[in-house]
Amino acid sequence: MRLSFLGTGAAGGVPLWGCECAICTRARVDTSVRRQPNCALLEAGKTRLLIDAGVMDVAERFPPGALDAVLVTHFHADHVQGLFHLRWGKGALDVYAPHDSEGCADLYKSPGPLKFTHLSKFEKRELGEVSITAVPLVHSKPTLGYCIEHEGARLAYLSDCRELPPATLEFLQRWQPHTLCLDCTFPPGADQPRNHFDLLETVALAQHFPESEMVLMHIGHKLDAWLQDRPDALPAGMKLAYDGETLICIGVP
Amino acid sequence: MRLSFLGTGAAGGVPLWGCECAICTRARVDTSVRRQPNCALLEAGKTRLLIDAGVMDVAERFPPGALDAVLVTHFHADHVQGLFHLRWGKGALDVYAPHDSEGCADLYKSPGPLKFTHLSKFEKRELGEVSITAVPLVHSKPTLGYCIEHEGARLAYLSDCRELPPATLEFLQRWQPHTLCLDCTFPPGADQPRNHFDLLETVALAQHFPESEMVLMHIGHKLDAWLQDRPDALPAGMKLAYDGETLICIGVP
Repeated sequence: MRLSFLGTGAAGGVPLWGCECAICTRARVDTSVRRQPNCALLEAGKTRLLIDAGVMDVAERFPPGALDAVLVTHFHADHVQGLFHLRWGKGALDVYAPHDSEGCADLYKSPGPLKFTHLSKFEKRELGEVSITAVPLVHSKPTLGYCIEHEGARLAYLSDCRELPPATLEFLQRWQPHTLCLDCTFPPGADQPRNHFDLLETVALAQHFPESEMVLMHIGHKLDAWLQDRPDALPAGMKLAYDGETLICIGVP
Repeated sequence: MRLSFLGTGAAGGVPLWGCECAICTRARVDTSVRRQPNCALLEAGKTRLLIDAGVMDVAERFPPGALDAVLVTHFHADHVQGLFHLRWGKGALDVYAPHDSEGCADLYKSPGPLKFTHLSKFEKRELGEVSITAVPLVHSKPTLGYCIEHEGARLAYLSDCRELPPATLEFLQRWQPHTLCLDCTFPPGADQPRNHFDLLETVALAQHFPESEMVLMHIGHKLDAWLQDRPDALPAGMKLAYDGETLICIGVP
């Protein structure tokens, strides 16, 4: 099972508009440190799933038939804005998403080829060669994480969240992901209130999953800046995701 | 006064996702015939106004200070989606828009640097070296056209619309634009109901403005295809806009 990160940034991406911090200034000239909004491509056998659609060229990257489905974590614009363009096109694309009566803009009113299916908490589906289980997350909008299994390999994609509901934590502890991709927007000590994990919280959570590879995503410029000054701050088994990076997730026998 | 078209396409742009018509097929390999969603840059003296923000790289094209303001015609995603990314950035940007309690997605809830001012029908403002008058249009959402004047040159930008209210038509006939940019999404005989002009309607409207240069925009792939087969179909004084094209509007003494 392969997970390719197309966008690993928090809502505004990196560089942030008008921000003159060292990270954003560098990102304007060094595209390798840019972070687009949230989006990842999961490939397992012949199955291709897009997780979120924050990048703006989804229509160009994925013509009809290139994806089996889209898994939407929630309906904030930076997670679904790449779907807007598809709506006046031809064909059909299954989109799995949480129950959210608002949606985003007029995605529901004018869905065009997008065929929305709303998943309930802990609902399990077989999509091509993978099985997915939708797990509830605590964020500022109804939000689902996705636990994805293929030939014994287990990958959890949890974004956006500021907290795991106890039932989600219990599920994950039973399920034991080999790879756990987690919202980590802020460095330690970010201002309250907020709707995303900071690094201290992800490190604390990682202690529940000593066997898992922890991959941090939905990263804000302040976390990049904080880590640039502290290159050894991440514990063993934890790393940042980068745009364009591909993870391989193989079940350990 | 210069108007540069950054996007001249209808909602899905050209090529449309999954469409295999001759125009969309060609646009996939010939970027010169692509049409991005609605967006234009107006420059007059030192004043720079963005009209709509349908292109997705507004944040990259226009750093803080590069624009004096954005004029939003209405809150459909294909006219404002380029503003989403700016919201987590630094600085400030004035955005003039119609009264619309819905807005689009969470633009109002999380405006960040976007400073919204809602204009009333026929409200006039001085913005830098130009004066703008907001004129109501009939569309499926509250919508304003913008009549822009600079040193005696008058340009009207009217998108999206299926009909001009009588008071708007009267205003325009008094005001006598030198250049009139007009929504023309469909070829003649498009299916009903719809919320945009077709070519027959724009040709009929043009008869009220014999002295104006008529420029058609918000163009759907079906109009491009129809005109490709009928290269002489446009009357004298009427032309299509193209992405990347710049109009010069000079007041005739």
